[in-house]
Amino acid sequence: MKIAFTTALTQEGFRRLKGKVEEANRNEAEVLVSTFDYRVTRQMIESMPRLRLIANFGAGYNNIDLDACRERGIRVTNTPQPVIEPTAELSFALMITIARRVAEFDRNIRGYGLPVTGEGIQFGVMRNLSHSLYGKTLGILGMGRIGQALARRAKASGMTILYHNRHELTNERMNELRSEGVNAQYVDFQTLLQDSDFLSLNLPYTPDVHHIIGKPELGMMKRSAYLINTARGAHVDEQALVEALKSGIIAGAALDVYEHEPQISQELLALPNVVLSPHTGTGTWEGRIAMCENVTDNILAFMENDYNKMNIVL
Amino acid sequence: MKIAFTTALTQEGFRRLKGKVEEANRNEAEVLVSTFDYRVTRQMIESMPRLRLIANFGAGYNNIDLDACRERGIRVTNTPQPVIEPTAELSFALMITIARRVAEFDRNIRGYGLPVTGEGIQFGVMRNLSHSLYGKTLGILGMGRIGQALARRAKASGMTILYHNRHELTNERMNELRSEGVNAQYVDFQTLLQDSDFLSLNLPYTPDVHHIIGKPELGMMKRSAYLINTARGAHVDEQALVEALKSGIIAGAALDVYEHEPQISQELLALPNVVLSPHTGTGTWEGRIAMCENVTDNILAFMENDYNKMNIVL
Repeated sequence: MKIAFTTALTQEGFRRLKGKVEEANRNEAEVLVSTFDYRVTRQMIESMPRLRLIANFGAGYNNIDLDACRERGIRVTNTPQPVIEPTAELSFALMITIARRVAEFDRNIRGYGLPVTGEGIQFGVMRNLSHSLYGKTLGILGMGRIGQALARRAKASGMTILYHNRHELTNERMNELRSEGVNAQYVDFQTLLQDSDFLSLNLPYTPDVHHIIGKPELGMMKRSAYLINTARGAHVDEQALVEALKSGIIAGAALDVYEHEPQISQELLALPNVVLSPHTGTGTWEGRIAMCENVTDNILAFMENDYNKMNIVL
Repeated sequence: MKIAFTTALTQEGFRRLKGKVEEANRNEAEVLVSTFDYRVTRQMIESMPRLRLIANFGAGYNNIDLDACRERGIRVTNTPQPVIEPTAELSFALMITIARRVAEFDRNIRGYGLPVTGEGIQFGVMRNLSHSLYGKTLGILGMGRIGQALARRAKASGMTILYHNRHELTNERMNELRSEGVNAQYVDFQTLLQDSDFLSLNLPYTPDVHHIIGKPELGMMKRSAYLINTARGAHVDEQALVEALKSGIIAGAALDVYEHEPQISQELLALPNVVLSPHTGTGTWEGRIAMCENVTDNILAFMENDYNKMNIVL
């Protein structure tokens, strides 16, 4: 079977394809391995006459024109499982970094950043104070597997967990979570905004949740609250967020994704009360290899017509 | 009762002392509130003829000349409980920040740091890769209450926990930990060094553990391992650590404390594979207030001769 890649990936996760597939030009390829950051447009799909499968590297697949795939009967798969723990881990990392000011301190100690006194950082028991996660309330918007894996970490850190989701979790799933030590309370969206000390976005992007966090929603949050986004940049009205951060509507934000990626608002770069990472929620070596293995699984199952073993999106 | 402070602290935790104590000069004070970063020397103690209690703000009390106190029958108290969660939280924050490169990314996105290409940070699925905590082994040196609170967080993050301690934990305490979801295995010191992907120091400082991590110990660690220190700087031979970081003997370090605090080795400030914070393990607003309340408890109990309610060190 002939295969094309949109992006160079680590070879380590593709060893099982050796001897079974052959790398080819796009106009010959039956399988396209795409990555979540690469737009697979209608035009591109139309230029691939033999295409039968798009095996996307990533859980989100809003990079792919699904209508164009549907019309041609092209299958689309994703890699939902291996992204769960790395992304929940980065959500937690960003939350604890903004709360405990770790990135800011590290910058200032090295002499970078925004020295107020011109003296650099000074040690002292009443200096460099931050905020504990312990005892605080985490609100999770989007309580899928990533949100739940974040809840597990937050609970062990002494946090109270609220969540909002299209559907409340089933009793069965709630019992499974309780067996992992996690208690999470379902609340409506407004309550989530009003009661959270930390608000983490962990929902997939679809056009109906575009700018789900905009000026009105930021205005409902606590002035002491922090926003965490490792989902998709377009969930947040970035200009409204910048205004909220500058005027003290909320206390801070920690972002892995941006509305106009890879562009980041210049104003964000200058703010001390934000932590910024370069869309690397799933970006660990361990995670990358596991995602490649998952792409391999999907391609092998497709070749064997074993649809039960595939992560089918379409 | 007359009281003196070595350091200006938040007033919020001292309200219950109002009307009961009176701030005074050192030569009149019966109670001295000292902070963990302030050396209470023999000379200072000898200059306070009426001194009966040193109520230290902090769990560690290696800042106080205990021999001089003992000779005079001066009581010393500390604040062991409120430091547990904030310090375990910072240990975890430093570990996840070095693993997921959060501080480094934040610096580089802002244009600070050590650009290799001169182009600043670039987005991309095979760029900016880091390491997961999930599936890794955390070794905890010093399995007191802080180490145990760190273990709880690490377990929920999918880590395996090893520990070394003067004494193995009792079966009773191990059962309590298991009820919180924590499994931790006791190993000897050498095994801890050899088997840990992350090694966290959470032991108190005493002269017999001076430089417990030096060149030979660093040499026994994995080349892929990270060292985390939120305990005391003198646990680590800082020059040996710098050499190990520069020559790839270990992969990185995240430090809240330094051997010659507040001086930090200039070489550390230039290394990309370290995260540095300014001795702020207990330094949250919530933690500071709780520590002041604990100092207040100790002073009130001392005034009532209720030694059972005091955190007595001496």
